[in-house]
Amino acid sequence: MKDLERYHAVFSSLVFLFSFATSVTQGSQPNIVILFADDFGYGDLPSYGHPTSEAPSLEKLIENGLRFTDFYSANPVCTPSRAALLTGRQPPRTGMYPGVLYPQSSGGMPLEEVTIAEILKPLNYRTAIVGKWHLGVGKNNTFMPTNQGFDYYYGIPYTHDMCPCVTCFYPNDTCYYNCNTKVVSCPLFENEKIVQQPTDFVTLADDLVIKAKTFIADSVTKKQPFFLYYAFHHTHNPQFAGKKFRNSTVRGSFGDSLAEMDWNIGEVMSQLKESGVEENTFVFFTSDNGPCLIFPFRQGSSGLLKCGKGTTYEGGQRVPGIAYWPGRIQPGVTREIASTLDLLPTIANITNAKLPSVPLDGVDMSPILFGTGKGNTETFFYYPSFSLPYIGVFAVRYKQYKAHYLTAGNSNSGNKNHDEDCRASAEMTPHAPPLLFDLYQDPSEQFNLNNNADYQEVMTKIYDLKVKYEANMVWRESEVEKEFDSSLEPCCNPGCEPFPACCQCSSTYSEPEYLRFIPSIDRI
Amino acid sequence: MKDLERYHAVFSSLVFLFSFATSVTQGSQPNIVILFADDFGYGDLPSYGHPTSEAPSLEKLIENGLRFTDFYSANPVCTPSRAALLTGRQPPRTGMYPGVLYPQSSGGMPLEEVTIAEILKPLNYRTAIVGKWHLGVGKNNTFMPTNQGFDYYYGIPYTHDMCPCVTCFYPNDTCYYNCNTKVVSCPLFENEKIVQQPTDFVTLADDLVIKAKTFIADSVTKKQPFFLYYAFHHTHNPQFAGKKFRNSTVRGSFGDSLAEMDWNIGEVMSQLKESGVEENTFVFFTSDNGPCLIFPFRQGSSGLLKCGKGTTYEGGQRVPGIAYWPGRIQPGVTREIASTLDLLPTIANITNAKLPSVPLDGVDMSPILFGTGKGNTETFFYYPSFSLPYIGVFAVRYKQYKAHYLTAGNSNSGNKNHDEDCRASAEMTPHAPPLLFDLYQDPSEQFNLNNNADYQEVMTKIYDLKVKYEANMVWRESEVEKEFDSSLEPCCNPGCEPFPACCQCSSTYSEPEYLRFIPSIDRI
Repeated sequence: MKDLERYHAVFSSLVFLFSFATSVTQGSQPNIVILFADDFGYGDLPSYGHPTSEAPSLEKLIENGLRFTDFYSANPVCTPSRAALLTGRQPPRTGMYPGVLYPQSSGGMPLEEVTIAEILKPLNYRTAIVGKWHLGVGKNNTFMPTNQGFDYYYGIPYTHDMCPCVTCFYPNDTCYYNCNTKVVSCPLFENEKIVQQPTDFVTLADDLVIKAKTFIADSVTKKQPFFLYYAFHHTHNPQFAGKKFRNSTVRGSFGDSLAEMDWNIGEVMSQLKESGVEENTFVFFTSDNGPCLIFPFRQGSSGLLKCGKGTTYEGGQRVPGIAYWPGRIQPGVTREIASTLDLLPTIANITNAKLPSVPLDGVDMSPILFGTGKGNTETFFYYPSFSLPYIGVFAVRYKQYKAHYLTAGNSNSGNKNHDEDCRASAEMTPHAPPLLFDLYQDPSEQFNLNNNADYQEVMTKIYDLKVKYEANMVWRESEVEKEFDSSLEPCCNPGCEPFPACCQCSSTYSEPEYLRFIPSIDRI
Repeated sequence: MKDLERYHAVFSSLVFLFSFATSVTQGSQPNIVILFADDFGYGDLPSYGHPTSEAPSLEKLIENGLRFTDFYSANPVCTPSRAALLTGRQPPRTGMYPGVLYPQSSGGMPLEEVTIAEILKPLNYRTAIVGKWHLGVGKNNTFMPTNQGFDYYYGIPYTHDMCPCVTCFYPNDTCYYNCNTKVVSCPLFENEKIVQQPTDFVTLADDLVIKAKTFIADSVTKKQPFFLYYAFHHTHNPQFAGKKFRNSTVRGSFGDSLAEMDWNIGEVMSQLKESGVEENTFVFFTSDNGPCLIFPFRQGSSGLLKCGKGTTYEGGQRVPGIAYWPGRIQPGVTREIASTLDLLPTIANITNAKLPSVPLDGVDMSPILFGTGKGNTETFFYYPSFSLPYIGVFAVRYKQYKAHYLTAGNSNSGNKNHDEDCRASAEMTPHAPPLLFDLYQDPSEQFNLNNNADYQEVMTKIYDLKVKYEANMVWRESEVEKEFDSSLEPCCNPGCEPFPACCQCSSTYSEPEYLRFIPSIDRI
């Protein structure tokens, strides 16, 4: 919906209607919390095999929740992955391709796309996103969350490596990242207003978690069900952490950043408990894509999976998945296939929300969550980070099998990766017949089976699935490719000079000494 | 001790002495169970990150026991690793280098080496090894377990890939391995007698576990404490499993073999419980070295660690480690450094056994197990699979740092490994200064720090540790290099013809149809 005021008017009417018509209030409708990490790999949690990660809150969710071994992010990079999570639709349908949006992008996720927040609004839900949006800002904040069903937004609307580098670790450690001072520093938004620029990464996590907790507490006080989409800026590079978490772990900057995110998650869980709604809240944790393997010592891990971010190998898209709902979801481990595409239809089922009347690519995963049977799908379709209509699906998973019709390395998987297939120098390569792997016996995608006669039948089956899937795929015009316009970069002092350095404000505290630009840092 | 009869005489006197002097009987002394897997990798258990492994008994031990993230096997191949576990001494000291013993080997672990079994015998322990020995057979069974402190032995005394291939999976699946019909088929020993040849791999696990359970039950009946060293032939290639476990898992042959081993472990744990001694028994599970990465679909996983078996990279020697003792060892995870070398001194401490009066390389890990503090060591020294006096230590770990003075790939890590460093073609390479890795921040050994000025101090410290360690290392004459003599190959019909095909016997059942030689199988 484009017009926020009109939206609020409609919303108020709906609240009025529902409060009489169906008595949908806090307690009768489950709350929804999605915890979404950034560039966090399959192998980054202790329970997924990491020897030095520290994440007690996430491990507690795993211990008392359902851990997925085969959960996928819809896409191996941020923007398309996030669009897919919120809409249940593959990025081609939403125009969220190829690659990601930038601060200068004029495009964004089309407003007619229906988000999880939008299916819940008619049911009297309060809706908030805290953290990273990355589905566009645009002229007059056209594409911001408040125009996509969210009552409230607090965070940086894109990735913080798109801003010049500022202090990332308390008290004054510089971010280890290439600093581009030709773009605006990171804007911290509250709804459609910039409340801090540059964003203070030392206090960011404290700020975000307070907003998240307040939102939960307020919703309960108002006796309304809520949807919290907590999209962490952690653990994307340049990693950051505040006073409490600097040098708090043995895993270095990445470990400290993870520990801060984990603390945030612990705080959210405490708030749910304190507010008395833990047993009426569906919590799901996952990541937007696999680990970024560019920077030594500041990278996640895909564990035993091949490659990482940006690729359609398992390391690019298979990520941790944890579902938690005490009393409803039995603790355990599932090997069923599910993905971020499934969150919208699942939440629709849980809440009895109306599904959008558009083709969806996700399926309801309630049978997996609530133990009523096997999952609703045996397939997953992999689109690359640089999806384009004339390229289409790169790979298809069917049961334990995965066929790669196209493969490509990606700089995000490390141009010095020991596995040459992961590097950007591994250019896009078609495979006919496709490379075929048995992910149950060979999770690291090492042993191609496509020459083995025993597998011709499954390859035919997969090919048929692919043809059918692609025949039903409608590619919307790319929003990501729309023109760049540096005047669209979010600045708290519109029209100021010298741009972009003049975009500095702080509505929350007096500017500290360390809020300064660091013109250049050696790229490790 | 060389003379079994003399040994038993001494043993009987000791039993007599102890039964009066210290009342050491079942109940007052803890029992010891070591569960030792073969070629089982760091990443092969669900709790260490494997997505498709099934090991409910081991996972239960982990859930209720202490899981090590930084536990090492003393050596990256079988023979030296096993010698080190049983003696607490690095392979150079015991002559168990370079590489491994073969059925034709005339050498074996010197009998004056003191094993865990031998330090426990004076304390009235019953001692048994079930499974793989691999420390020599020799002329007249000189080097067999019964001459090294074990009252009882049941198993194949070396690795089953050293025998011609027979049926490995019920009912008649062939082993996928190169079959050498010029050597004797696998002999199954009970003490010093061959009770079955060729060994029936379809029933082997059933046989072994019955022997193990009987040993436990009998010891309890006899009111004697016991030491069970259960050295699995699983999950070494060619993998095998019986009727119950064939096609029982989604992970294929390796998964089925693991499931059978896990079932064996579950049976042992049940027996401990049934015999009422679970709370008086120290159980430790680990592996002899990292995964063998030669055969597609029939290999373990080192998870996020570099390379596998045969190398001194982490994947070659860091292995799962699980300590279990209800009521004594608190459930949890430890990041302390420990190794198979530490088992003898630890068991000596737990049982109050006298330490051998020879230099030991292991240290007592009781402080880690019983939560009284940090471990007793911050170092680990890596000798290669082909240890030689003029080469010495390949790598040294100190705290989180690891310095590689020499590296080499190994065919056991796969000559098609995506990481070229792991392949046999990566010849032995000296590094001066050594490659330096921070295993906490970089467990996959990717980012060499030896040029970074901040690490010069730690490199000096490590060098000093290495010099001191090597100065105190005494290299015994190699037993592994002693001459090969095909007449030493264990045959149940000594002197029969045509050798070795005539070595066929079965004392336990009539020869089944599938006990046949399969002359040749394609190497995958």
